[in-house]
Amino acid sequence: MITSSANVDSQYLFSKIVQHDESITPMHLDLPDEVDDTISLAYGDADPALFPVDALITAVDSMLTGNLDISLNYAPAYAGLVALVQERMARINIPLAHNEIMLANGSSQILSLLPQIMCDAGDVIIVEGPSFLGAVETFFNCGLTIETVPVRDDGMDLDILEATLVRLAAQGIRAKFIYTIPTFQNPTGSLMPLANRQRLVALAAQYGVLIVEDDAYGDLHFENPIPPKLIALDPKWVLYVGTFSKILAPGVRMAWACGPSEVIKRINRFKTEGSNGPFMTRLVAQVSADGWLDQHIAVLNANYAKKCQVMLETIAEAFPSDVRYNRPQGGFFVYAYLPADLPVSRLLPAAIANGVSFLPGTTCYADGQGTHEIRLAFSFQSLEKVVEGIRRLGATMHQLRQA
Amino acid sequence: MITSSANVDSQYLFSKIVQHDESITPMHLDLPDEVDDTISLAYGDADPALFPVDALITAVDSMLTGNLDISLNYAPAYAGLVALVQERMARINIPLAHNEIMLANGSSQILSLLPQIMCDAGDVIIVEGPSFLGAVETFFNCGLTIETVPVRDDGMDLDILEATLVRLAAQGIRAKFIYTIPTFQNPTGSLMPLANRQRLVALAAQYGVLIVEDDAYGDLHFENPIPPKLIALDPKWVLYVGTFSKILAPGVRMAWACGPSEVIKRINRFKTEGSNGPFMTRLVAQVSADGWLDQHIAVLNANYAKKCQVMLETIAEAFPSDVRYNRPQGGFFVYAYLPADLPVSRLLPAAIANGVSFLPGTTCYADGQGTHEIRLAFSFQSLEKVVEGIRRLGATMHQLRQA
Repeated sequence: MITSSANVDSQYLFSKIVQHDESITPMHLDLPDEVDDTISLAYGDADPALFPVDALITAVDSMLTGNLDISLNYAPAYAGLVALVQERMARINIPLAHNEIMLANGSSQILSLLPQIMCDAGDVIIVEGPSFLGAVETFFNCGLTIETVPVRDDGMDLDILEATLVRLAAQGIRAKFIYTIPTFQNPTGSLMPLANRQRLVALAAQYGVLIVEDDAYGDLHFENPIPPKLIALDPKWVLYVGTFSKILAPGVRMAWACGPSEVIKRINRFKTEGSNGPFMTRLVAQVSADGWLDQHIAVLNANYAKKCQVMLETIAEAFPSDVRYNRPQGGFFVYAYLPADLPVSRLLPAAIANGVSFLPGTTCYADGQGTHEIRLAFSFQSLEKVVEGIRRLGATMHQLRQA
Repeated sequence: MITSSANVDSQYLFSKIVQHDESITPMHLDLPDEVDDTISLAYGDADPALFPVDALITAVDSMLTGNLDISLNYAPAYAGLVALVQERMARINIPLAHNEIMLANGSSQILSLLPQIMCDAGDVIIVEGPSFLGAVETFFNCGLTIETVPVRDDGMDLDILEATLVRLAAQGIRAKFIYTIPTFQNPTGSLMPLANRQRLVALAAQYGVLIVEDDAYGDLHFENPIPPKLIALDPKWVLYVGTFSKILAPGVRMAWACGPSEVIKRINRFKTEGSNGPFMTRLVAQVSADGWLDQHIAVLNANYAKKCQVMLETIAEAFPSDVRYNRPQGGFFVYAYLPADLPVSRLLPAAIANGVSFLPGTTCYADGQGTHEIRLAFSFQSLEKVVEGIRRLGATMHQLRQA
């Protein structure tokens, strides 16, 4: 546009929460540009080699030669997709009525809507540290007060959670929700065992705080069966968020939330674009039907398990021995803890110069922690590039120590 | 779920704006169930006979045999779709920089985000009456104070708008935005002439109030060229909202907003699902490319012009002579004004009993007006059903008078 918007006086024009003109998240680093053959281990993208192209093409052709009006006109989300999700949840002992479930454009949408429906300015929420960077950034930008509870190998540290709840209660503060990823946590890959899950939901009920259970990786377990979902342990105080991003394709932007109808009803009211649209809901339902999705998940898990194993083996060979890291049983990520002389602020520029990148742990905290932590995604790159990327990263660590 | 959510105390749990557990919109009517062969003239759905099935199938096949990662993984919206919209807007003298345009999941999403980024509780906005029912409902539910300005054959009554701005200013109130549909207004079909558009943008600039120009029907003109968009007359004070719903298919859920970068930036921050996803943005861009969209719009306009003409001819034959109605030059709707003895509260149940439905004018106002107004969509039904529906409705009117 030729004119500037100088006359639009932002202090008047906008609501209080958006007077700022930039994201206020403190966690962004200025990074050097990646070179062309940089191997990015930074983001939890799905493996494109596993996208079900033929199944999607068949589903689209079938949809568009059927009743067009129901897939291309104004129409609610396809009820069959809700039924499919209900059936999958019922199989793991989570029966859901129609008013206890909703579809969303990716689980990030639910995480963004929650502060709107649940929080007023200054409200307190409790978030794992480290956690999913998108959630942390969203909650931070909404102006919420974030209490960070550390994550151990068995998930959120429940002693610290309880101490936090006690301290808040003593101050007359009741947190609005606890955001947790109990299964193959992002970024640590940790898995919360049953006893901890039982204690967590009991604490939530005792203190009257809703748990938001982000289960993005819940189907991606490599071997052992996983403990029950939190929502199966206490449907009153858990809002569960699931997604097709990891088990079908992120690009379809399809997720669901389920839990107390009082919460679902209000999220739906603030889901600004209305339904997910008839086209994508039918496409996802059609391609997932008749057991196809379960077969596909089995294929994914075999693949991701292999890539995880190879990443761990290569780390064992390539990294300095004082770098600690987790051994996830599922999900997309290995999380590593760096020694004191290798902060991410030093490692990341050198790594990018050597043709490999990763996610700095600092992006996974609301409070500036994570300066010596890195997330390595084995999900996206090919086996060969996982190996080469880890070797480059290990070589970078050794180089920095010799410098 | 087996348990109730009785323990989730809603008064504590939710933010102030969603303490209510139901929509607070006053405009819903309890209607009798439609019978199976009811001809609905109520909703502005697109004509399913005109959906470009072959073009869509070709585009999907092409997309899914190319680089899958860019259409199915986590990825931003396809930049080519933004470029396509920019090119179309530039053609009508609306040059847009990258930070002055954004995509959305249907234009309703933009209309829902606006109150969030622009308004605090109790803020005043100005809305045409009647107007798009979705917008009216959204604004109402957000707790905004709505000033209603009547719509004439040449669009919003600007004398009343000016008087409203003067009155508000005298009270120390500056409205947050003016929501208008200047081209083939929903529901009245009115078209605002150039002189009125110039006066409208001058008033907005004078009083420092942003105009929200909803242009959902801007490409659907039957004959004459239409006046310049408001945003072309004053890019500083206009946020423009366009959509592919009417020119491609509602089911693709694809719209755009453009205007001051300060506004676009903030809407993007609160667009909770992030980007529109790579799949649908590529699909819409691919099918629309190389002039296809313009050819398709020409086909649509010939079809909708014919259906509009037939609806008007049938109304002239079938309705009592004291029913007034507009003669739109574009868009989807004929709007009719009923005589005093035929309020919609009386007409609608009888019409549904006779197998035809329409949109009551009361749904198009925030303040209870519209009791003797009805919206008739010629867009969705076939020519034959348009004729039969109008005949049934006219017969219902005559029956009610003879009763």
